Amino acid sequence: MLAFYNGEFIESTEKIISIEDRGYLFGDGVYEVIRVYNGKPFMLKEHIDRLKNSLEALRIPMPYQEQDFYNYIEEGLRKLNESNSDIYLQITRGKAPRNHVFSKDIEPITAMIFRKSKEIANELREKGGSVLLKEDERWANCYIKSLNLLPNILAKNEATDKGCYEAIFYKDNYITEGSSSNIFVIKNNELYTTPLHKGILPGITRIAVLEVANNLNMPIHEDYFTPQFLKEADECFITSTTSEVMPITKVDDQQISDGKVGMWTTRIYESFKLLTKK
Amino acid sequence: MLAFYNGEFIESTEKIISIEDRGYLFGDGVYEVIRVYNGKPFMLKEHIDRLKNSLEALRIPMPYQEQDFYNYIEEGLRKLNESNSDIYLQITRGKAPRNHVFSKDIEPITAMIFRKSKEIANELREKGGSVLLKEDERWANCYIKSLNLLPNILAKNEATDKGCYEAIFYKDNYITEGSSSNIFVIKNNELYTTPLHKGILPGITRIAVLEVANNLNMPIHEDYFTPQFLKEADECFITSTTSEVMPITKVDDQQISDGKVGMWTTRIYESFKLLTKK
Repeated sequence: MLAFYNGEFIESTEKIISIEDRGYLFGDGVYEVIRVYNGKPFMLKEHIDRLKNSLEALRIPMPYQEQDFYNYIEEGLRKLNESNSDIYLQITRGKAPRNHVFSKDIEPITAMIFRKSKEIANELREKGGSVLLKEDERWANCYIKSLNLLPNILAKNEATDKGCYEAIFYKDNYITEGSSSNIFVIKNNELYTTPLHKGILPGITRIAVLEVANNLNMPIHEDYFTPQFLKEADECFITSTTSEVMPITKVDDQQISDGKVGMWTTRIYESFKLLTKK
Repeated sequence: MLAFYNGEFIESTEKIISIEDRGYLFGDGVYEVIRVYNGKPFMLKEHIDRLKNSLEALRIPMPYQEQDFYNYIEEGLRKLNESNSDIYLQITRGKAPRNHVFSKDIEPITAMIFRKSKEIANELREKGGSVLLKEDERWANCYIKSLNLLPNILAKNEATDKGCYEAIFYKDNYITEGSSSNIFVIKNNELYTTPLHKGILPGITRIAVLEVANNLNMPIHEDYFTPQFLKEADECFITSTTSEVMPITKVDDQQISDGKVGMWTTRIYESFKLLTKK
């Protein structure tokens, strides 16, 4: 593990943050999680672009030039010296005596944690995970990758307490996304995923999977679909930076199709893994 | 200013928190703001009761016995030695390597900041404030006083940028509450406020005002009302621990009634001030 705070690399994450950091008081900040394969951050440009969009939506200025982020990340990875790792990157609005109103002079603060990747157990990947359906009670702007993650945490914990891998949200009878993932289903050899809108995160792995599916000549539908459609799908998988392409074989207590990881899911996962080796 | 962290009083708020505190990473925690009049915390029991409810809703255990909170607060106030002050009290789930899923062994962390009160300028109080109406895009469980405050911050800042004192939320054409306040209107000598439900905070000053209005023999309606009803009200005020009873005389660009602070608002504020002197 290696950390970074406000321009310096540090060995410990303890006793760093001010009580008056607005990240601590209000969740007033944004983040990214970037996976590193063979020492190379995967789709880093896309992560930094999304970070910039999140910051802009919250009116937090970029703390560094884009190139500085690349340089700090490169330096961190050299110091960490692991081939496969995850970079957690967080920017908060900065610190000031507690007040909802923020001053325009406040300086944003960047923290990073570099850590060896934890791979999903092969057994789970081969068997597929189950998901719990939950009503989406989150705020309207989940396209911003913010630190306000309580509803996501609560749903994920309820899911894991019930032996599920992930919670999948629905709103007005349409699936939105998972607590920390996007969702895809396959029906009659065609791929479906919720279209981008303010209510879901524009996932980076989602971009990669759409590219992969396109290369596999799959018809792609970025369309709203119901929990019922999900339950009647031929295959399902979720995507995220750390789960990559994770097969889902059960929704609530119901098997999807024959309850086995499907052919398309496997092909998409394999093609995705090829992308990460480029 | 005096701070408290994890059982100890400290003079500085700098370099205290771990980067891996879940309050910092997820906004995974709750808070209270308690006002102290003449050295005595106002409605402290009600604040601690609400704190317990918020913790329970998030499945965070109480870090101390209730009596310990009273003792720490008493000790802090003695050290601060100000007659009128505000206590900011925050509890996070604790620290652990970042993961949405929390372990049951994680230990909650308490932080407090004691600071001399900032009074609202008499001039503003006599003139009344204006409010900006905003669609309520927050999550479904705003009865939990959590650290996930981004929508509140963004609305409040938009309001102050437009010269307003507060943003007032509406959802499905009904007023819910302010970004950091509850709202009351008076029409034909009767008092109206949004009923408690999962979408609003059960304000402590709200409790006090309902008691005061009852003592003044005002008919009280805890009923949903529309933005239009608010605009056509005779009087309006908002309540919060730090704003107390704050008159509102303008909604968006429209005066409420004659645009002056109303008689009932003044009487309720004066009766409230008497309560704080008990």
